[in-house]
Amino acid sequence: MASPAHAPSELDRALNGDVRALARLLSLVEDGSPRIREVIADLLPRTGQARIIGLTGAPGVGKSTMTGALVGAFRAAGRRVAVLAVDPTSPFTGGALLGDRIRMQEHATDEAVFIRSMASRGHLGGLAAATPQAIRVLDAAGFELIIIETVGVGQAEVAIASLADSVAVLLAPGLGDAIQAAKAGILEVADLFVVNKADKPDAQQVVRDLRNMLALGTVEPGGWKPPIITATATTGEGLAELVTALDAHWDWLCASGELKRRRHARAREEITMLAFAALRDRVTGNVDELAARVADGTLDPFQAAEEVLARGQD
Amino acid sequence: MASPAHAPSELDRALNGDVRALARLLSLVEDGSPRIREVIADLLPRTGQARIIGLTGAPGVGKSTMTGALVGAFRAAGRRVAVLAVDPTSPFTGGALLGDRIRMQEHATDEAVFIRSMASRGHLGGLAAATPQAIRVLDAAGFELIIIETVGVGQAEVAIASLADSVAVLLAPGLGDAIQAAKAGILEVADLFVVNKADKPDAQQVVRDLRNMLALGTVEPGGWKPPIITATATTGEGLAELVTALDAHWDWLCASGELKRRRHARAREEITMLAFAALRDRVTGNVDELAARVADGTLDPFQAAEEVLARGQD
Repeated sequence: MASPAHAPSELDRALNGDVRALARLLSLVEDGSPRIREVIADLLPRTGQARIIGLTGAPGVGKSTMTGALVGAFRAAGRRVAVLAVDPTSPFTGGALLGDRIRMQEHATDEAVFIRSMASRGHLGGLAAATPQAIRVLDAAGFELIIIETVGVGQAEVAIASLADSVAVLLAPGLGDAIQAAKAGILEVADLFVVNKADKPDAQQVVRDLRNMLALGTVEPGGWKPPIITATATTGEGLAELVTALDAHWDWLCASGELKRRRHARAREEITMLAFAALRDRVTGNVDELAARVADGTLDPFQAAEEVLARGQD
Repeated sequence: MASPAHAPSELDRALNGDVRALARLLSLVEDGSPRIREVIADLLPRTGQARIIGLTGAPGVGKSTMTGALVGAFRAAGRRVAVLAVDPTSPFTGGALLGDRIRMQEHATDEAVFIRSMASRGHLGGLAAATPQAIRVLDAAGFELIIIETVGVGQAEVAIASLADSVAVLLAPGLGDAIQAAKAGILEVADLFVVNKADKPDAQQVVRDLRNMLALGTVEPGGWKPPIITATATTGEGLAELVTALDAHWDWLCASGELKRRRHARAREEITMLAFAALRDRVTGNVDELAARVADGTLDPFQAAEEVLARGQD
């Protein structure tokens, strides 16, 4: 329903620069409020303009400092930037993330910068479902760049990182995390690598380890070879190179058709996940009796799954 | 269909101790063969007897050696043991796991021990779906104890560990992994902790770190307080204590009704996941056109999900 012209809706206010209205909208998203459906349908025509950058890496590599430095570099170029700091791990680490956020508050008074933490509330599906909606809200609110920062390098982080158009993987000397990143499967999703704390003596060793691991992969003609950028977030060294590399990746995404392919694949994943969530909601009341029979060995799980799907149609 | 008495079926042979028939059956499971449905339905009446023990921990803590030692301890008590070594991470680490397996081959000639690696073939859902079926097969084949060993401490490992009745989390000095385990959310799923390499000087520090972290949690009256066992897998020190602690946990599971609750919850998860997999298969052909509209912002993802569910009914 359209609001009368003299009383702009909460949505209008959020999309037109009212930071508090925007924060409330994102709280609805984070809470998984049913009202979000309507909001997303309303703001959909205003989406599709933002560039989404994922920043991931093991704890301790300096992700928050790097995000802050990157925000500064984009702001210096006059771009509006939003940061979504997403913690898909257990609530155990919630405190640490919040502490990291505070360090980024140097940008807190800048209207063209919006910073928001989203922690896992309950199960993972909630956050995986909420993040794409949060991106749509920030996109519609006119942020040209949206940085998604995740904690850690596990499967959950890989999943969140895959919501970005460009994925930057951050590493640092002394954490042995080129290997850890390889184990978590994050090398495969990286569009560029940033070796932070380049002023430390063994930074070049990390670059060499990374080159060796990347040498195992092949780049198709016209494909993208992930560059390795050395930087020091605390001093700003290497930040200009990082921005240039991100811009180059964006140009490649647009020119190669890869942007369209990625966004299509993301939409597929999102639809399937939402369909699953809807299915889960529908069958919640019915599945207990089936589960009891599967648990005591009187019903096989495949048949139980079929019954769930059949009941899901009501 | 029943086989004639003079020609036992592959399933009968596998369930009656033919190790090669059992290995072929598990290959079907691992491949996600559609034949598995029928096999599971057939062997279901013979399941429900096995105790399932999960063993997880960061790379380098000595999981394979500990698994081998535990197998030895159970065998000394005359129990039949199967080991499923599951690697839910990227195929990148497949080689390392296979190397670890070879070290356990001291038990390879013992007919009452069955050891099997399952690596991720393609996407995670495949392995998450295959593991419960592999457990059913080993359970029906009469293994009293099934040890599920996972690599790493990420979300995927937590998911696999949650298939066990008792989850043992392995730590070792010098890897800082009490903290890592906390970050991965694995402390919450642990029924007992094993600090391996207890002969190293800083093992007691790991025990202290762990105690401090566990002190944050509360144990309800009649609940289970995860014990911390120090052990050295290479010498067998602490193994008897570990077996005693596992037996105590099993007694508690049975007496408290928690075993029933856990198996019910697992059945719920499994049914929901299989329903999801079936749904995914059904809609694969249809979702592309919807995804294109969501990607270009002309259709909202919630409506797309509804259409997927409606089409899934055909």
